[in-house]
Amino acid sequence: MALRYRTAGTTMASALRRATPQLKIASASARAFSASVQHRADSYVAGEPAGPSVKTQLPGPAVTAGLKDLERVFDTRSASTLVDYEKSIGNYLVDADGNVFLDMFAQIASIPLGYNNPELAKAVSTPEAIRAITSRPALGMFPSTEWGQELEGGILKAAPKGLNQVFTAMAGSDANETAYKAACIWRGTQDRGSRDFSDAEVESVMRNQSPGSPNYSIMSFTSAFHGRLFGTLSTTRSKAIHKMDVPAFDWPAAPFPALKYPLEENKAANEAEEQRCLDEVESLIDEWAKKRPVAAVVVEPVQSEGGDNHASNQFFQGLRDLTKKKNVLFIVDEVQTGVGATGKFWAHEHWNLTTPPDMVTFSKKAQAAGFYFGNPALRPDRAYRQFNTWMGDPVRAILFRAIYNEIERLGLVEHTAKLGDYIYSGLEKLAAKHPDAIKNLRGKGRGTFIAWDSPKRDEIMKATKARGINIGVSGESAIRLRPMLILQQHHADIFLREMEAILASQ
Amino acid sequence: MALRYRTAGTTMASALRRATPQLKIASASARAFSASVQHRADSYVAGEPAGPSVKTQLPGPAVTAGLKDLERVFDTRSASTLVDYEKSIGNYLVDADGNVFLDMFAQIASIPLGYNNPELAKAVSTPEAIRAITSRPALGMFPSTEWGQELEGGILKAAPKGLNQVFTAMAGSDANETAYKAACIWRGTQDRGSRDFSDAEVESVMRNQSPGSPNYSIMSFTSAFHGRLFGTLSTTRSKAIHKMDVPAFDWPAAPFPALKYPLEENKAANEAEEQRCLDEVESLIDEWAKKRPVAAVVVEPVQSEGGDNHASNQFFQGLRDLTKKKNVLFIVDEVQTGVGATGKFWAHEHWNLTTPPDMVTFSKKAQAAGFYFGNPALRPDRAYRQFNTWMGDPVRAILFRAIYNEIERLGLVEHTAKLGDYIYSGLEKLAAKHPDAIKNLRGKGRGTFIAWDSPKRDEIMKATKARGINIGVSGESAIRLRPMLILQQHHADIFLREMEAILASQ
Repeated sequence: MALRYRTAGTTMASALRRATPQLKIASASARAFSASVQHRADSYVAGEPAGPSVKTQLPGPAVTAGLKDLERVFDTRSASTLVDYEKSIGNYLVDADGNVFLDMFAQIASIPLGYNNPELAKAVSTPEAIRAITSRPALGMFPSTEWGQELEGGILKAAPKGLNQVFTAMAGSDANETAYKAACIWRGTQDRGSRDFSDAEVESVMRNQSPGSPNYSIMSFTSAFHGRLFGTLSTTRSKAIHKMDVPAFDWPAAPFPALKYPLEENKAANEAEEQRCLDEVESLIDEWAKKRPVAAVVVEPVQSEGGDNHASNQFFQGLRDLTKKKNVLFIVDEVQTGVGATGKFWAHEHWNLTTPPDMVTFSKKAQAAGFYFGNPALRPDRAYRQFNTWMGDPVRAILFRAIYNEIERLGLVEHTAKLGDYIYSGLEKLAAKHPDAIKNLRGKGRGTFIAWDSPKRDEIMKATKARGINIGVSGESAIRLRPMLILQQHHADIFLREMEAILASQ
Repeated sequence: MALRYRTAGTTMASALRRATPQLKIASASARAFSASVQHRADSYVAGEPAGPSVKTQLPGPAVTAGLKDLERVFDTRSASTLVDYEKSIGNYLVDADGNVFLDMFAQIASIPLGYNNPELAKAVSTPEAIRAITSRPALGMFPSTEWGQELEGGILKAAPKGLNQVFTAMAGSDANETAYKAACIWRGTQDRGSRDFSDAEVESVMRNQSPGSPNYSIMSFTSAFHGRLFGTLSTTRSKAIHKMDVPAFDWPAAPFPALKYPLEENKAANEAEEQRCLDEVESLIDEWAKKRPVAAVVVEPVQSEGGDNHASNQFFQGLRDLTKKKNVLFIVDEVQTGVGATGKFWAHEHWNLTTPPDMVTFSKKAQAAGFYFGNPALRPDRAYRQFNTWMGDPVRAILFRAIYNEIERLGLVEHTAKLGDYIYSGLEKLAAKHPDAIKNLRGKGRGTFIAWDSPKRDEIMKATKARGINIGVSGESAIRLRPMLILQQHHADIFLREMEAILASQ
């Protein structure tokens, strides 16, 4: 399969020649390391190794010793390895032992354009960026003369169609929580009508009682993941370990469609399943209206932590229609799906919705966080209702602007759509040969946002790591790919080749 | 009053000569501005103007036009002004019209060492810092080889006595929420004993029901402010506008002592008031044990947003003793009080506690955020219970390290203790002359963390702004000072002189 990586009339290779001044900040040890590996000239980030290389048993001695040392002051039980970020470059992660991994997990899907990307380094080394760090404003009270341009030239340039406003936050979790707050405040304002806060509201809210603290709820779906703060954790339904012992709001969860694969062979059953879930959403909204009215429904375009669960465009259009009909806000959580990985800048663009979502949240690959909205009524009716000291982070706005500009300049969304098709079709061939090892392959037409179920997941994960490939898991049995947007065909070929070898040897 | 600013045997002035290379990044317009104002040679940050200067009516034309423009994409209703951060320097904030303000509010108490501090700029311009931004790790899974040193050389070097561990976060709100989660997980683990999660727990937690989602509560105090996410907002009891329409947990609030001033004249009454509050804490813990057991009590050393409410060292020792006795965790929220402003690095050091708090949260002036703890049992009993993608921010750890080192090098905590005494005694004299204008002066012996009640607060605030002084408000009637740690006597003299003139003209 011959793919051509075209970006605005130029080939990828010629775009690359214009693109990437070599980073000048490497230390002697990083330069020595770089000199010791083979490079490819046609990679997006100059200086990338030609391929993975694992020279020690895993974990190697330096990783083992380093993690043991770190454990004194930092919980390392979830650590996969210890990384030398100075030596890591582009798609390649280098561990403390000098082992080189092709990184198709990308810091839990959060690195957009590779390690030590020189264009991004340039963007955050400017006086404007350094000042944004050292003279960090309380944006709500003392915004900078530059803030409007930083928003309009970056975060808002990337905004989903129909949503021209943003509330900035720090990470995915508070992006979602502030969106939930916006929904509850909107709902309260609507329920109150034109009158002012009542005395009863003012008095009761200080005691966390209704009517001031109302029983509004946020509806999410089974297996959803929206974050781990108290509000978001109440909408997260991925795994018990994420939630155990933490008090939660009594909020409703609707079933997320459990689709059967391959999709082509299960069309009727899947349509029925999606209709069942939509019906359930509708009856839950009605049922909860009496006890804890649903202010918003929140959904991921692909349930990511929960096992890479997909639904059809029709399902999401149905959800949009239903929320409109019920006067419930529709929040799309694009923390993991956003910024290009699905082959659209925002995954919900695939749905061709007749009206846009009410709010779209983002973080991870954007490196900035927050929620987009379009309806002016989602800006609360008076000041200080949605407020905090920092209200986002200007240096991350600058970084997202640079990320967005690079994605546009190099056409990386279209590139990722095509490369995703290439990887998907490679995996499809592998699945045909090894149907017991690659089950329920999913993510067709969704860029590199690809996953499958693997009965021998732990062995497969161990083997891929030993061969220098870093991928992720999700849910109970899924393996997920979450590469960067600069993954190219030669990287994909390495991945497919190694995966084939692993499956052949199982 | 002649203060000598001594730092480890050298005078402030000589320390300053070693300290501050002029920042090289200013643009032509910033240089022209700098050339147009008078400078003082003995200020901590080179290039500071000699004093405030307000040349336009407030808001001036550029601020008005700029905010109107920004309003299209960003809520400016809480904006005090529009700031030119490039021209702002040290203690001086410069607005879009070129008006110069002595900033004694410091971005809601969050700027430690002045605008465009060259030492901090240097610290975040290193290859290590740039890499921490552009190659941001998912710290829980892929910590860097440098992370241990970054923690131990910075955040943990600044740790309160007895607390040698940290969980890093993004801002004050999630610092507190993750501390609350740690408390609930600790409590759940303790209640469970040595057994594994039960089937009933695993099943019920996915529905947000007990026993998996228990009814634990976090107790806070009336007028407290701990943040605005769903968990922290449930402990915030400052103002109705902060909470209205947002669902809250049914958690208990104990009364915070309402002390009478001057303290010397109200000793017995204040002791009785504090005892009343402690008794109430105790009975609330007992009462709630049956319905929503209190996992932790959270308290600010000085209730800051709630009106600058103080309590005695004895009160806090009593609270510590009570929580120990009741097996309830004691969380001290030092988001606003931490990092030197009270004349100790951590405000709770004033209390001379017999045992340290269980957790201490921080953000703002630290520019990094999180919670400190000492008891190993506050690290959850298994991995992934307290986890998220980024788990803090390495560049902020680097920044806090630089902030900490500067504070130590220049002895800024001791400096702030002395300068606070100087300002307090100046205000005391003013209060004696204008007892109706400066009421309940508080913060004696608490560095520059000074406040008073002002019946004509709005007029006073307007007048101070017109004279080029930026201060803050809190609660219903308080004016609060929250200057940076680099405020010096010559700045304090300007503030006291202008305040005297304002009061004389009222």
